[in-house]
Amino acid sequence: MQVNDVVAYIQAGRDRFVADLKEWLTIPSISADPAYAGDVRRSAGWLADYLRAQGFPTVEVWETPGLPAVYAEWPAEDPDAPAVVVYGHHDVQPVEPLDEWDTDPFEPVETGDRLIGRGASDDKGQIFFHTLGLRAGLAASGRPAPPVTIKLLVEGEEESGSVHFAELLRDHRERLACDAVVISDTTMWDADVPSMCTGMRGLTEVEVTLRGPSRDLHSGSFGGAVPNPLHAMAELLAALHDADGRVTLPGFYDDVVPLRDEERELFARLPFDEDAWLRTAGDSRVAHGEKGYTTLERIWARPTAEINGMWGGHTGPGGKTIVPGQAHAKISFRLVAGQDPRKVQMAFEAWVAEHVPPGIEAEIPVAGGGVRPCFSPIDSAGVAAARRAMERAFGTQVLFTREGGSGPEADLADILEAPLVFVAVGLNGDRIHAPNEKVEIPLLLKGAEAAAYLWEELATALR
Amino acid sequence: MQVNDVVAYIQAGRDRFVADLKEWLTIPSISADPAYAGDVRRSAGWLADYLRAQGFPTVEVWETPGLPAVYAEWPAEDPDAPAVVVYGHHDVQPVEPLDEWDTDPFEPVETGDRLIGRGASDDKGQIFFHTLGLRAGLAASGRPAPPVTIKLLVEGEEESGSVHFAELLRDHRERLACDAVVISDTTMWDADVPSMCTGMRGLTEVEVTLRGPSRDLHSGSFGGAVPNPLHAMAELLAALHDADGRVTLPGFYDDVVPLRDEERELFARLPFDEDAWLRTAGDSRVAHGEKGYTTLERIWARPTAEINGMWGGHTGPGGKTIVPGQAHAKISFRLVAGQDPRKVQMAFEAWVAEHVPPGIEAEIPVAGGGVRPCFSPIDSAGVAAARRAMERAFGTQVLFTREGGSGPEADLADILEAPLVFVAVGLNGDRIHAPNEKVEIPLLLKGAEAAAYLWEELATALR
Repeated sequence: MQVNDVVAYIQAGRDRFVADLKEWLTIPSISADPAYAGDVRRSAGWLADYLRAQGFPTVEVWETPGLPAVYAEWPAEDPDAPAVVVYGHHDVQPVEPLDEWDTDPFEPVETGDRLIGRGASDDKGQIFFHTLGLRAGLAASGRPAPPVTIKLLVEGEEESGSVHFAELLRDHRERLACDAVVISDTTMWDADVPSMCTGMRGLTEVEVTLRGPSRDLHSGSFGGAVPNPLHAMAELLAALHDADGRVTLPGFYDDVVPLRDEERELFARLPFDEDAWLRTAGDSRVAHGEKGYTTLERIWARPTAEINGMWGGHTGPGGKTIVPGQAHAKISFRLVAGQDPRKVQMAFEAWVAEHVPPGIEAEIPVAGGGVRPCFSPIDSAGVAAARRAMERAFGTQVLFTREGGSGPEADLADILEAPLVFVAVGLNGDRIHAPNEKVEIPLLLKGAEAAAYLWEELATALR
Repeated sequence: MQVNDVVAYIQAGRDRFVADLKEWLTIPSISADPAYAGDVRRSAGWLADYLRAQGFPTVEVWETPGLPAVYAEWPAEDPDAPAVVVYGHHDVQPVEPLDEWDTDPFEPVETGDRLIGRGASDDKGQIFFHTLGLRAGLAASGRPAPPVTIKLLVEGEEESGSVHFAELLRDHRERLACDAVVISDTTMWDADVPSMCTGMRGLTEVEVTLRGPSRDLHSGSFGGAVPNPLHAMAELLAALHDADGRVTLPGFYDDVVPLRDEERELFARLPFDEDAWLRTAGDSRVAHGEKGYTTLERIWARPTAEINGMWGGHTGPGGKTIVPGQAHAKISFRLVAGQDPRKVQMAFEAWVAEHVPPGIEAEIPVAGGGVRPCFSPIDSAGVAAARRAMERAFGTQVLFTREGGSGPEADLADILEAPLVFVAVGLNGDRIHAPNEKVEIPLLLKGAEAAAYLWEELATALR
């Protein structure tokens, strides 16, 4: 295969590619709003037809108790070749506030190199580059099938919490058997700093109620002589971190896969402007967190405990001199590779039980299951292969990032028991989930080029 | 003066006394509800007429920008005799919830030794015993005027915050010049444990807002890397007390008049059932507070810091994984003799400024002036004299209490520059501010007896 052939094929297909994507973007597949359920189904149908037209031998719409996913399979010629699931989603975010859009969110507009419309980057555009890349790779190789079996799975409920996704994966576990999962739903560091994500943090959320007196007491008659649950809450939550900003739950860090020096060095090569980042962080004045780690390491690769809400007693205008009966707090833990949400919940429960002062009763409602972290080491076979494909497309060193947030990706890794490889060309500036979402068309084409090289790189690496 | 004469006079006057009090109690002088403003005025007029009929040479209704007070003066024969202001109030609490009353709150009912109706104890009954006591004392002495000049001041806005009371005192400062102020608006320990209050705690209320990011941040993208104002609030408020339950504001205890051993010993003689008290404290399970002090000492004679309310971030149902932009808290300090509300506010402001972590901005709105504490030493001339009068009436040792709450009494002491003497016969079980308020008629008559002896005791003590 000649690089130039791939590039030439993609350049030749550009206009058709953009025109087709624009057609798909006109379908308002908003999964969070039941009024658009028909449009999400229409989007699935449109994609299925398109994938058939692109040559996928097998294309199916997979129903769920909610909205449908699309599954397309293109088997490798060699029955012993590795199989790779490619994950994306065809549903989109709501568009409110509509009056902040410069154009109709579902009438996509090309302005120079940009394509503006809901879903252009998240995630229709990023699924689309795979189809162009796959065809470019086939054309350049002159073969009828890719060097790995490709199993494209395009979810329809990602923007409404992926509520049926784990069940879908379990139901189709055998069909989806694979050696790696390529995720195309994240971002690169910057247009001229291509990068790959290697993991997402997990999450577990807990709530705690501290009860003191059975009713609010007059602080003149009782203040200073009975336990005040707000004092107890302040003391409890203040004790959740030590002076070095580390979480004090016993065993919290025990299972954490430590950051390796090489990954820290690669993080450090990212052109990170901390002052600019602090401005995006609601004009926060200083960086703050676990001692011994940089800001990027803290948000990507270190677990945290964050108080999300805290309340109790008199919170309205004016004064009310009471000893309140109750105090409440909501706390979430972001977890990293190696940590288990359920284990952290149990550690929190045990820690609260041990730290609550006499006369205060703690109640911790049963928490949800949380989200598991996911992570692929930078030197794992899949990541290294995808990095080579990206570097061939971009012609420069590809760096690494991680995601501080949490998503259904961990389910893919856990249920399909396969390593994750994040290949994406979205940008943080694409305004996903916001008005005027856009995608850079040249980056989609670079993504197509990387996808063209990806399958042969993975075929070698995973064999 | 013969004790028997006083007792006989009071016994003879009992029925008339109760009948007159019942008449006054029919007037719904609820000062907090503007709909009853006319009734508060009618109550003032009724009292003025009554006091004239009782023989007071001077009776005036004193207007305020709100509701009127009644002033009555009975000069001593001797122009050099001391003058004593007697304070009470003729307005009453609202009566809601009305359906919890067994009888109409403004149709007073006698049941055995009890008189039931709004204001029976708080505070119409307690003003009333002074008139009977004064006439009994005059009758027994056979003289036309009391041994001290009596200046009865009956406020009409106590139950609605005494908003114009300090101004009224300042306006009439010369008329109200006195050597002591007798307060008849508190309670005794129990019907068979007569006691006198010697002070009330002061109060200052503060609010603090801690600001971090200018908006709520996604905890996946920013959590663990910027300061969280809820963490800062928990740490700040946890640091407000030390391990011994002492308030950590620098200088907080510097001006406190310490409890004297004698007063502690007298407190300790009160038959205090801590378990029963904890049940009244909303079934609190343990006593808790400043190390080295008993529960009664803590609520009566030690200053405290109490978090009355705390809030920030997501406080609704479900989870919201944010780093919130703000955290808020309301804190009140109860103050004891020697402490100045303004000084405590300033100490709090300075302490917050010093303790707020980098990247968090503290905002403390200007607080109100607070309420000053008031206190009369148990061996001060006025207290000792009143104690003798009480002991003569009750025939047993009179013990001491204090009030943990705060009231306008400090204004009387500060503006009139005179010591306070608390003489009252209400009980904690009188259900003041609640449905079915009642007073024990025998205690009102004991109050009248104590009042009959009070003036000669004070005449000697204050001369």
